[in-house]
Amino acid sequence: MRSLLIDLDGVLYEDDKVIPGAAEVVAWLADAGIPFLFVTNTTSRPRHALVDKLKELGIPVEEDLILTPPIAASRWIVTHVPGPAALFVSAATKTDLAVPELDETAMEGAGSVVIGDLGEGWSYGRLNRAFRLLMAEPPPVLVALGMTRYWRASDGLRLDVAPFVKALEYASGRTAVVLGKPSLEFFLTAREMLGSGAAETVMVGDDIVSDVGGAQRAGMQGVLVQTGKFRRQDLDGDIRPDAVLGSIAELPGWWKSTAAASAERQS
Amino acid sequence: MRSLLIDLDGVLYEDDKVIPGAAEVVAWLADAGIPFLFVTNTTSRPRHALVDKLKELGIPVEEDLILTPPIAASRWIVTHVPGPAALFVSAATKTDLAVPELDETAMEGAGSVVIGDLGEGWSYGRLNRAFRLLMAEPPPVLVALGMTRYWRASDGLRLDVAPFVKALEYASGRTAVVLGKPSLEFFLTAREMLGSGAAETVMVGDDIVSDVGGAQRAGMQGVLVQTGKFRRQDLDGDIRPDAVLGSIAELPGWWKSTAAASAERQS
Repeated sequence: MRSLLIDLDGVLYEDDKVIPGAAEVVAWLADAGIPFLFVTNTTSRPRHALVDKLKELGIPVEEDLILTPPIAASRWIVTHVPGPAALFVSAATKTDLAVPELDETAMEGAGSVVIGDLGEGWSYGRLNRAFRLLMAEPPPVLVALGMTRYWRASDGLRLDVAPFVKALEYASGRTAVVLGKPSLEFFLTAREMLGSGAAETVMVGDDIVSDVGGAQRAGMQGVLVQTGKFRRQDLDGDIRPDAVLGSIAELPGWWKSTAAASAERQS
Repeated sequence: MRSLLIDLDGVLYEDDKVIPGAAEVVAWLADAGIPFLFVTNTTSRPRHALVDKLKELGIPVEEDLILTPPIAASRWIVTHVPGPAALFVSAATKTDLAVPELDETAMEGAGSVVIGDLGEGWSYGRLNRAFRLLMAEPPPVLVALGMTRYWRASDGLRLDVAPFVKALEYASGRTAVVLGKPSLEFFLTAREMLGSGAAETVMVGDDIVSDVGGAQRAGMQGVLVQTGKFRRQDLDGDIRPDAVLGSIAELPGWWKSTAAASAERQS
């Protein structure tokens, strides 16, 4: 039984336009009873807003089928780290962080220090509080909601979560656990939710590094679609996708043909 | 002709107390006509304030004899980088940065982006402005006034310059030129000011990594004093000082004995 992980942005839609055939593919997945999960690094809006967006695009899905960094971090923290979490995240992200939270003024006692894209919410005092919490004994775990370096706003580039994680890593001498593609922990969390083995799981995405490379390093297959951020040069690098599809619309055909080939090898 | 580089904090004084014999050693250096320079990573006060402090401790010195990160950065920038410098530094540090400055609101056109310990002066907007300047074309040089990770204030630990440099390095994919011990550029600048060859220059400090290790990697001798931040364990690591002195007070004796030994070898 094979399972699927599917990226959202650039795979199901580009900006606010659905990729032709995407809705039909998602309906096919449900009909065929194929276990699947949407995996995205988006933290700018809570999961219910992603559900709303997909619905508007004609793709009705349950919230439980979407894995974002805060959802993955919640699972990871609850499983691995005792004690309350100190949250340095936006209000939208906080909605999806189902973890016991440390008091906002406490300067010690954190089991984990969770860093997201706080944007204008960052100040010296706030970053320094995260640092002091990290330096307390016993040392809490530093958790990063992805490692995106920056994003392009209408008025220019804006620092995302990663630079602040790097600042805290360097200051504290600690290494962050990253819950976002392409980190191993993120893909492991996705597989746990699906209940599927690595070799039986296929990741479909438009990012050769985050989606395809990350999946392959986690022992899964990585399939690249030529929509979204795909560029011709992506195929000239070191990362070799297990398949390259024109778009998500070609997924059912590829799925059936590889299933047939696999059945033939086994017979 | 041998020359000397001497650290200030922990070598000439500890907090506000002069190390016994330090004033006499500095007087001896001047009398003996030995070229020397004080080299410090301090950026919390301008150079003239360091002169005042030394004077109070009974050690009169000229400003020109003190090399700090902003002084070194000024020399390095003027020599290596055309165009104005965008300054992200404290008011105290700005006093010592003798470089053409970019307008504080400009979002491009920087020849260099200079990062110091801004402390509470850091905000998301300010760090993001440094980032956008770095991403402009042609790309400016990222200059760091040392790589101190944090310092201990009366109310607890406080992030220093390095975490912000690391954030900008990671976001921009650029590597900073560091003008502060133990960077090679800093020691080269010191030697240029002294006009001395590496093999003829001796660094005296209390920091096994910044002072002794940095000097040795720059091809100079590194002498460790057992005052200031010195700890017994410093002698158990990979860095081997060329000499270990109880304090700066023992410098003239060591200097004369090594000079005599050197003269003997040459005769």
